[in-house]
Amino acid sequence: MTDHPAADDVLAAAARIAGHADLTPVLRSRTLDAIAGCRLHFKAEHLQRGGAFKFRGACNAVWSLPDEVAARGVVTHSSGNHGAALALAARSRGIPCHVVVPEGAVAAKLANIQRHGATLWRCEATQAAREATCAQVQDATGAHLVHPYADARVIAGQGTATLELVGQAGVPDVMVVPVGGGGLAAGTALALAAVAPGCRLVLAEPAGADDTARSLAAGERRIDFVPDTVCDGLRGALGAPNFALLRAWGAEVVVVDDAATVAAMRLAWQVLKQVIEPSSAIALAAVLAQPERFAGRDVGVVLSGGNVELEALPWHA
Amino acid sequence: MTDHPAADDVLAAAARIAGHADLTPVLRSRTLDAIAGCRLHFKAEHLQRGGAFKFRGACNAVWSLPDEVAARGVVTHSSGNHGAALALAARSRGIPCHVVVPEGAVAAKLANIQRHGATLWRCEATQAAREATCAQVQDATGAHLVHPYADARVIAGQGTATLELVGQAGVPDVMVVPVGGGGLAAGTALALAAVAPGCRLVLAEPAGADDTARSLAAGERRIDFVPDTVCDGLRGALGAPNFALLRAWGAEVVVVDDAATVAAMRLAWQVLKQVIEPSSAIALAAVLAQPERFAGRDVGVVLSGGNVELEALPWHA
Repeated sequence: MTDHPAADDVLAAAARIAGHADLTPVLRSRTLDAIAGCRLHFKAEHLQRGGAFKFRGACNAVWSLPDEVAARGVVTHSSGNHGAALALAARSRGIPCHVVVPEGAVAAKLANIQRHGATLWRCEATQAAREATCAQVQDATGAHLVHPYADARVIAGQGTATLELVGQAGVPDVMVVPVGGGGLAAGTALALAAVAPGCRLVLAEPAGADDTARSLAAGERRIDFVPDTVCDGLRGALGAPNFALLRAWGAEVVVVDDAATVAAMRLAWQVLKQVIEPSSAIALAAVLAQPERFAGRDVGVVLSGGNVELEALPWHA
Repeated sequence: MTDHPAADDVLAAAARIAGHADLTPVLRSRTLDAIAGCRLHFKAEHLQRGGAFKFRGACNAVWSLPDEVAARGVVTHSSGNHGAALALAARSRGIPCHVVVPEGAVAAKLANIQRHGATLWRCEATQAAREATCAQVQDATGAHLVHPYADARVIAGQGTATLELVGQAGVPDVMVVPVGGGGLAAGTALALAAVAPGCRLVLAEPAGADDTARSLAAGERRIDFVPDTVCDGLRGALGAPNFALLRAWGAEVVVVDDAATVAAMRLAWQVLKQVIEPSSAIALAAVLAQPERFAGRDVGVVLSGGNVELEALPWHA
């Protein structure tokens, strides 16, 4: 598999991860439909194993490895959900897992990673430090790198969430997903190419990490930025294959400020009764921020994760 | 229908409320199963219309009324969830609804009631004041009283949650539900009589409002108490028909202190990713408090409601 997966790879991923990943429900809400002015179909990936969609990509990557490669284990760098997902996926195959975590990561997410049996390696919170530490662990252990998003197997795996949503709720008019590094976003584009070619793709991106919006506007990757957002899962820089896939699909971006994301998170907790993290709530915030894009439509939304520090909720700040 | 509904009344209620009430999902969690040492099947009634199972009983009562009675509207007293449920049910039939609310009720629940179109009447937080105010409203408006739990139609309606659970997840070995006034508890006993006669019934009751435990132990109602519990939905006194039905069924009671309830609530939020209120979390707390009662069993748990003040979570107190 090259760095640029194809639509068929999403179908193959769905077959590969069946029996490991959970079929998560699609949630509806009369109240939120009335507020948003459209029909919202929430794919509940915060109920996925590990508490996020990330298990799909990690699982696809781990089970794609030849036995002799898998035996040496896997390694990644992750602010949280991908690390926990890779740990779970590695455990499902009985192989070692190493996770490089940047300073400042959410404690609840680190606890998840350790609970699933991975070894933690700490580093500074820069992209360069993450990658350097990851390379050191690779050298020392022979573990195989599973990048959190710039990886064809991961991208294809993340696309299976939308594949399932279409099977459960029909073809939406628009899909809305959060974008950070672009694993879910690019996977969603591929899934749409496979089963819903007429569906638009809207990416919800924090104003404090809007590299995807700037990159797509410029026609080339613009990833020189210091993230500043409550969406801890969306601070990574857009990956190269991710950019290429999103550009090819014609993905749109809605940039959302943190206040709108926190308000949407609170609304989702109150009405949907679902514990979702800011990086998930931003997708609902995007719909509420620009209702004219979605009016009267069937809108698929991936609720991407629910790993939150319950002692430090953003509306208490 | 008398004050003592029969098992068949639950089946009739299910037919009556179909098309109004939602079929809520049954949630599972590998993590909670491992912690509890049993297989937990959570009936997600916090996802029911109005955010609680209460809609089932209210809807059954409202749609049981003859047209000429219904036309004068309905009235009730409620600390919150039943009031919102009756308001929604009345709206589904296009009739007026009056709700008497005691001082100190949860603001989120009052907002729900008003949002659904009911008229609020405030009174002191005693049982006597509730009933007196309710009688005044009846006199003034001609509205028909739908008691929150000591009502055969309400009891039968609440039983439909367990009826559905059995259909969705099979017959459990034990059902665990919270008990306050006993509407859900008595309805669950009836549902078990109808479709799962070998299933045990365990009631989770707050230590600060343990009238059901004392009543069942004494063999007669003991309802002279001042409630003191974080479970705002469980402060009512056990109803007479409720007591009779629970006694006849041989219901067991697990008394739970508030600290254990709050810990279970936090655990449910963290692991299940569900926003449930203390009055719901107490059922999980009961399982965790006395694991030997449930070890290795299939345990049905009704997550009864999810109307919480997000600004005043009990673990911040």
